Amino acid sequence: MKRVSSNIVHYTLSPFHKPVVKVDPGESIMVETIDALCGAVTEESPLEKLLEEGRLPDYFNPVSGPIYVKTARPGDTLVVEIIDIKIGARGVTINFPGFGGLTAPYLQENLPPKTKISQIENGIIHFPTENGRTIKIPVQPLIGTIGTAPPIEAQLSTKPDKHGGNMDCSDITIGNKLYLPVFVDGALLYLGDAHAVQGDCEICGVAVETSSETIVKVDVVHGKSVNWPRIETPNEIMTICSSASLEHATKLAFTELIFWLNKHYEFDRMDAYLLCSQVAKARICQIVNERYTVAAKFPKKYL
Amino acid sequence: MKRVSSNIVHYTLSPFHKPVVKVDPGESIMVETIDALCGAVTEESPLEKLLEEGRLPDYFNPVSGPIYVKTARPGDTLVVEIIDIKIGARGVTINFPGFGGLTAPYLQENLPPKTKISQIENGIIHFPTENGRTIKIPVQPLIGTIGTAPPIEAQLSTKPDKHGGNMDCSDITIGNKLYLPVFVDGALLYLGDAHAVQGDCEICGVAVETSSETIVKVDVVHGKSVNWPRIETPNEIMTICSSASLEHATKLAFTELIFWLNKHYEFDRMDAYLLCSQVAKARICQIVNERYTVAAKFPKKYL
Amino acid sequence: MKRVSSNIVHYTLSPFHKPVVKVDPGESIMVETIDALCGAVTEESPLEKLLEEGRLPDYFNPVSGPIYVKTARPGDTLVVEIIDIKIGARGVTINFPGFGGLTAPYLQENLPPKTKISQIENGIIHFPTENGRTIKIPVQPLIGTIGTAPPIEAQLSTKPDKHGGNMDCSDITIGNKLYLPVFVDGALLYLGDAHAVQGDCEICGVAVETSSETIVKVDVVHGKSVNWPRIETPNEIMTICSSASLEHATKLAFTELIFWLNKHYEFDRMDAYLLCSQVAKARICQIVNERYTVAAKFPKKYL
Amino acid sequence: MKRVSSNIVHYTLSPFHKPVVKVDPGESIMVETIDALCGAVTEESPLEKLLEEGRLPDYFNPVSGPIYVKTARPGDTLVVEIIDIKIGARGVTINFPGFGGLTAPYLQENLPPKTKISQIENGIIHFPTENGRTIKIPVQPLIGTIGTAPPIEAQLSTKPDKHGGNMDCSDITIGNKLYLPVFVDGALLYLGDAHAVQGDCEICGVAVETSSETIVKVDVVHGKSVNWPRIETPNEIMTICSSASLEHATKLAFTELIFWLNKHYEFDRMDAYLLCSQVAKARICQIVNERYTVAAKFPKKYL
Repeated sequence: MKRVSSNIVHYTLSPFHKPVVKVDPGESIMVETIDALCGAVTEESPLEKLLEEGRLPDYFNPVSGPIYVKTARPGDTLVVEIIDIKIGARGVTINFPGFGGLTAPYLQENLPPKTKISQIENGIIHFPTENGRTIKIPVQPLIGTIGTAPPIEAQLSTKPDKHGGNMDCSDITIGNKLYLPVFVDGALLYLGDAHAVQGDCEICGVAVETSSETIVKVDVVHGKSVNWPRIETPNEIMTICSSASLEHATKLAFTELIFWLNKHYEFDRMDAYLLCSQVAKARICQIVNERYTVAAKFPKKYL
Repeated sequence: MKRVSSNIVHYTLSPFHKPVVKVDPGESIMVETIDALCGAVTEESPLEKLLEEGRLPDYFNPVSGPIYVKTARPGDTLVVEIIDIKIGARGVTINFPGFGGLTAPYLQENLPPKTKISQIENGIIHFPTENGRTIKIPVQPLIGTIGTAPPIEAQLSTKPDKHGGNMDCSDITIGNKLYLPVFVDGALLYLGDAHAVQGDCEICGVAVETSSETIVKVDVVHGKSVNWPRIETPNEIMTICSSASLEHATKLAFTELIFWLNKHYEFDRMDAYLLCSQVAKARICQIVNERYTVAAKFPKKYL
Repeated sequence: MKRVSSNIVHYTLSPFHKPVVKVDPGESIMVETIDALCGAVTEESPLEKLLEEGRLPDYFNPVSGPIYVKTARPGDTLVVEIIDIKIGARGVTINFPGFGGLTAPYLQENLPPKTKISQIENGIIHFPTENGRTIKIPVQPLIGTIGTAPPIEAQLSTKPDKHGGNMDCSDITIGNKLYLPVFVDGALLYLGDAHAVQGDCEICGVAVETSSETIVKVDVVHGKSVNWPRIETPNEIMTICSSASLEHATKLAFTELIFWLNKHYEFDRMDAYLLCSQVAKARICQIVNERYTVAAKFPKKYL
Repeated sequence: MKRVSSNIVHYTLSPFHKPVVKVDPGESIMVETIDALCGAVTEESPLEKLLEEGRLPDYFNPVSGPIYVKTARPGDTLVVEIIDIKIGARGVTINFPGFGGLTAPYLQENLPPKTKISQIENGIIHFPTENGRTIKIPVQPLIGTIGTAPPIEAQLSTKPDKHGGNMDCSDITIGNKLYLPVFVDGALLYLGDAHAVQGDCEICGVAVETSSETIVKVDVVHGKSVNWPRIETPNEIMTICSSASLEHATKLAFTELIFWLNKHYEFDRMDAYLLCSQVAKARICQIVNERYTVAAKFPKKYL
């Protein structure tokens, strides 16, 4: 199995970066990723100290790649099956002043910096609290940032958009398939930002951030494109849309889902709409990145 | 057990309506409710026909009540335990032109009217599709509209707000406890708008709308108030906030949840914030009423 | 000329309050109003002191009235011409912690309270600054809150909506005509919340708040209704819409404006749309009340 | 005076494009720009025809440049004085299906395509209507898109952001100075998208689009940066912020304005906040691009 090292990382998903590996459709690749804080925050160097000493990284959320997938052409769909996510032995959670879902960048003072280092072993995250208690949380790993190259833009890896990117969706996990639009030859797949666990909304803006060795299997659907990323799990199909308006992201995700049900599953469009109102689920993936991400889900049992 | 008839219904949650019954804390009451379309839409009178003939009700979403709960005073909390929701034998779903989550009231033409009548038996909803197929959906009943009287306003029963109202939250179901603020003597509880089932977001604006016989048990917590409705289930605590900005509703719900965790469960506030980012769940209850409703949830196992 | 005293004020615009006066169409009325802070904030009792001593009013933004306009029936339009606004000799501006446009009610600390008392004489507001300078601002008076009774709701006077209410629109000033929908017999006109001057957006949430003696001339257009308030000035026609989404308020105001141009001024709808893109103006009246208010304006010279 | 040809245009503002000219601080440059529709829409080839024939450009909103300004370094501010905007003899306005402020990309049908060609002479735009009337609108030219290169991203020229871009602000006009952040050596100034006139909000998404010969004079303020674009006119200072939330864009613009008043004009921060609430103006530049743009303005006479 080919291996993508995290020695080379990028801070944009871009058509301008040189592929680090070329793979065939159907091939699996092991991708090493470093954590979203670039490995800079540790027990010895908590965020509080890094801020004081002015030693922050210039950019966050490094992604590994890009992976060139042979035969993928603009207008195709890239299929990325998540085979495994092996996470690191520690996870980092911070409050970064001015960043996060319950802060607003107007006239109020920012919340102070805070660092939490969780030890992770045997599938359990040991999240330390201020009063000395440890909260034991089962590992539910996910890949926070994954996407293809936009056609002519270079977009920061901290942003989610039609090409994927920083979606922070818990459903991008082992056993599920992600469908991404292809805009350039070879698709140019990037990924990083593994989370040991993450809640809906990722409310403070940071999960239990960790390095990973992630195995993905890539494939190409030729001649069919998707407007926005989609996921298929054993039980659900879902659309993943992002917008700086949470309302708009939600409505886009349902619109995409209804068009999908209409075009591929022979539901009348109005039927799909009225039925989603009864059986669809939705997940607010995150409300902390430049655009917010929502997944709209339909149970396979009604297809 | 006292019974509240649906012969008297209201279209506002208001301090100005006369109580239909007075009950003691700890008492259970059977409340009859009619469907959100006032029983006007039937197989013989589908929406399409009602629109043509100009026979629509003036207002929608009737609520039964109000129920006066003895000893409840402003500043108290009303506890409403949902003991049972016995729904009717048919459910109505419509697309109402100009209403719903995937329409916008600007220059585009509205979507056309549509009516679906589902037969409901043995816990299964038989939802008919245009191509003759029937989708069988298990009943998961909920009370769409429930709330106390606002202090000096009369608010339409179609709106959700701090007093509750049209929250359309699937967690307001059998076995769960709802906590509501008390603004006036006796609290004045109203409820209606039963749904046989409903998806997240209630995307077309209408669930499988049905009449019900709902049993609630009411109680009062004296001297403690809640800012916004809260729910307790066997496994979760949750806050329910509403705002015309979906982003704001979501952020308010998490803010309320974090303050709850901080005040009642001895979590440091920053700990609560960072921990919610890992283990909280969220539900977009609806994005179709004047204000949108979001529930932020925390698993009891971490309390 | 009949006179409406500010001895009776209300905190809701409501169909349930008893008229204080009945007037004929074409009649002018002098209406006394007290300031939005109920006269509670003075040099001797600044907000800081009132907060400390727990002496705040229960509600803000009192309105005088209601005025019953004879012959006005549901479906009519009430025309309110602002003849004069005679403001008081002092104006109050405050920062109220947790209220205002550059604060967010999540986890950050609120901004502190602050009180500014401006002397007003000879048409000049003397606004005092912390460093001892006085900013001299010409008086440009407006009525912040004015509206009719909603049909079955009682809405807080702090909210703007279809019936008018707390729109805080600088164009509601001397010489302009306001058109309001009539929902109940007599229309039931309320007004208050005079501002000696106010900027776009009313960003801190408070203008130079003052008492007033306001003269309005009322009239009725029978059998024609407006969806939302409208204003006519010597040079412009404008629509005033409010929504908790600023984007939605703006889009609604333009939609109403385009329908107006289409129905009353013989513009093709698409022409009206494309032309507004070239010559329309917009004003963000306020982004601090429960719903935000936007005015979309079209120059009369192109009609 | 050096001349920048429109033979080379770009569809991203990017650090990766090669400068077409290098100029000194204090130098004026004549920049040719083509219209936002790439000159593709003409009387002979209206949009309706281009859509039918599948002959649309791949990208819209071409910008000329980039111009390398000597001595400009990251952390500096680029000053761009608009000396002249000489527009073309015809202007194009279209409704592009699915684009524009009064359409929503959900389930409703899009508005149909429409093309309007205006003749422009002697400072008057002759805007044709469907019923044969011509609306005569005085030319008020502006540069719709102008900005520097982002640091590591390539952003579509259709987007506004911190580096400027597609702000569609009527105040970017003859006689005014624009201040832009510098992220890369030489600043790399791009501009295009001239409008013969444009209303607030640019509601249909398109102005009277025209080619131009624009003269700008560039200068550099070393060692001082701006977070967001700013404009200085003879009478006002203003901040220009963009966000996909109109509310957020507005609040950001006021926050920037208040910080500006505080840091450079010796206003106490709370004074600046309370004073803006009385005398500030705001302009909604556009609500049609990916991010919406708002200008918050403070009159110089109060500085």
